[in-house]
Amino acid sequence: MSRMTFYYAPNTCALATHIALEHVGADYEARRLDFSKNEQRSPEYLRINPKGRVPALVTDRGILTETPALLAYIAQTFPAARLAPLDDPFEFAKLQAFNSYLCATVHVAHAHRVRGNRWVDDPDAIEAMKKKVPQTMGDCFELIEREMFAGPWVMGSAYTVADPYLFTISRWLDGDGVDIARFPKVAEHRRRMSEDPAVVRVLAVQTAK
Amino acid sequence: MSRMTFYYAPNTCALATHIALEHVGADYEARRLDFSKNEQRSPEYLRINPKGRVPALVTDRGILTETPALLAYIAQTFPAARLAPLDDPFEFAKLQAFNSYLCATVHVAHAHRVRGNRWVDDPDAIEAMKKKVPQTMGDCFELIEREMFAGPWVMGSAYTVADPYLFTISRWLDGDGVDIARFPKVAEHRRRMSEDPAVVRVLAVQTAK
Repeated sequence: MSRMTFYYAPNTCALATHIALEHVGADYEARRLDFSKNEQRSPEYLRINPKGRVPALVTDRGILTETPALLAYIAQTFPAARLAPLDDPFEFAKLQAFNSYLCATVHVAHAHRVRGNRWVDDPDAIEAMKKKVPQTMGDCFELIEREMFAGPWVMGSAYTVADPYLFTISRWLDGDGVDIARFPKVAEHRRRMSEDPAVVRVLAVQTAK
Repeated sequence: MSRMTFYYAPNTCALATHIALEHVGADYEARRLDFSKNEQRSPEYLRINPKGRVPALVTDRGILTETPALLAYIAQTFPAARLAPLDDPFEFAKLQAFNSYLCATVHVAHAHRVRGNRWVDDPDAIEAMKKKVPQTMGDCFELIEREMFAGPWVMGSAYTVADPYLFTISRWLDGDGVDIARFPKVAEHRRRMSEDPAVVRVLAVQTAK
């Protein structure tokens, strides 16, 4: 496999895939998009990802998008890293269900604070949406803490691609007006993940001037 | 594997998994929840799926939720049906990216018409959300028609789990105020899927009095 190109923007869900790539030691170049300049909607980037979003991963076979798909892809193409229970369809489905919940419910709840104009034009409605985010994000993480988080890692004794994904989204809680201290297991996970060498390296790249 | 129990409600995304189960000839019992009676929030059902949503699949290993996870699970546990490119991580990731887009973007766009109270409390804001659904759903399907739908099936020459999923969501277009005739490939796919014997059987079960 030749060198891959990974497109991201800081403070987006692309962090999860970025950490997974770094964790497995993939050969990739990370390219940052500046959302404040709307680079994700540039004609050049729309040729890479017509959805105008991150993450996107350019491989020698073609381009892949969508966090849950990318995380499973990295786990499958770097099996030695054991980032998913690849030989057990039931356990793999549980992992995928967790990632799907983060993608389609938790990320979406958060997005109503920062990207409300995806779903409504009226400025008052956009403000009304923001008001409910502390509640919806709080509800999501209560469910994660109580029902989903097996510990010490998301899926149990093994670190999987669900861990960088949960870490990525739990970093949004403060901005969303939710005190992570309400969720001791998630809080401890976030602290532990933030000390992981791959995470430290990726965050340094993503925040470098 | 002993008989599975599949929980669904009519006119929800659970249709996709239901069709896939029927397509592979799985041994399952389908149980309908009545959303008008809020059965998805009953204590009994919350013990099965604490998220209070459908679909949910009870297996002898445990309970699985989330459409993209269930679709991949069915493809992996019934490999003879060849519902996914299981031996090619890149092609599998493309399939998963499509399903993830349906789950986290298209389904979410639709939900702003019918479940706006997930994200906002203000009645005026809920109405404002509904107004944008024809545009957001139209934009999504334009992208599917132009960039994603390979034909004759979603992923190309082979029928995969993406086909019942696209079929399920394309059935919502009329109610969402979008004329499917704008998307000839999607429209023809929906027509063809609606004649599939597994789809006919599942829809008969889901609409039976």
